[in-house]
Amino acid sequence: MLPPSLQKLIDELAKLPGIGPKTAQRLAVHLLKSPHVRIKPLGEALLSLKDGLSFCEECWHVTEVSPCNICCDGQRDKTKICVVEEVLDVIAIEKTGKYRGLYHVLHGVLSPIDGVSADHLKIAELFSRMNRHPEVTELVLATNPSLEGEATALYIQKYLVDKNISITRIARGLPIGADLEYADAVTLGKALQNRTDY
Amino acid sequence: MLPPSLQKLIDELAKLPGIGPKTAQRLAVHLLKSPHVRIKPLGEALLSLKDGLSFCEECWHVTEVSPCNICCDGQRDKTKICVVEEVLDVIAIEKTGKYRGLYHVLHGVLSPIDGVSADHLKIAELFSRMNRHPEVTELVLATNPSLEGEATALYIQKYLVDKNISITRIARGLPIGADLEYADAVTLGKALQNRTDY
Repeated sequence: MLPPSLQKLIDELAKLPGIGPKTAQRLAVHLLKSPHVRIKPLGEALLSLKDGLSFCEECWHVTEVSPCNICCDGQRDKTKICVVEEVLDVIAIEKTGKYRGLYHVLHGVLSPIDGVSADHLKIAELFSRMNRHPEVTELVLATNPSLEGEATALYIQKYLVDKNISITRIARGLPIGADLEYADAVTLGKALQNRTDY
Repeated sequence: MLPPSLQKLIDELAKLPGIGPKTAQRLAVHLLKSPHVRIKPLGEALLSLKDGLSFCEECWHVTEVSPCNICCDGQRDKTKICVVEEVLDVIAIEKTGKYRGLYHVLHGVLSPIDGVSADHLKIAELFSRMNRHPEVTELVLATNPSLEGEATALYIQKYLVDKNISITRIARGLPIGADLEYADAVTLGKALQNRTDY
């Protein structure tokens, strides 16, 4: 019923995560109605996305040069490494402006149910990086406070427990603007347990 | 913080309707992790979207040849024209299999608040089409049952009221699977008003 070029775009859009067939149709028709000068940059950005992009061989953040800008930055505190799950987590932490150390992107979390073991993540790379850099004194485990994130943090902590470094975990507690009444028991329990001096 | 090629893709994705900056980030990182053979078809589909695509000069449906396949189809009932707002509405009606006539896509609805007047739509084209084709005996107004859709249907009906053709409106009533208790008063009122023999 639809011309092949439009149908092809709908099919390709529908393969993206969180975009169902209806949303794909809506997006494709929106693009069809847009002038060519507005579609072209998106098409070109997609085709040239991988050109010159790779992962930093130190921290596995996405970069155009390896080691990446963060690893090369002389202003950064090279004694701290913050372990995160994904590339976007680095951006989220950078936006806070509260951390000036280095990063290590695992590219996932341990999840036996999805068949993700330590071999699929950059965990071995983290351990060898720790060995190469004895100046590192603190490892901040900033995986998500989910079941898999906690398991991954525990796995890393168990391996490094004998080493002479401080291993910390990001605080779990109530987010700003939250309501005690609606907080789940585990979060509220953690918030009480980890209370700080006022 | 992010490499320019990735940032550019995020910016372009965020321009799409219903895709905010966070979703754009998530999609871009998903695409970054996908192999090139999976990104390429999407990029190419975008760049070649407009190649050879245009709107049918009879019914204004999207097509590769004008007049389009539906207008040229000898099996179709050429005495009926169904007026719809958008290209996707044609697809939705075709999927029902309950209509074998022709279509006319208005490409929008009358909406003074958004500055959309009759000149912006394919309404004049509909009227001249009606004059060119005196064989048309029924006009099915299938604009959305929204304020703007009803106003547009009324506008068309008023213009054609003196012509010797039957003007119908798609039925308004309760959708299949709905619950009377939760139906709004206008819908329920229409459902009672337009009740059919059992």
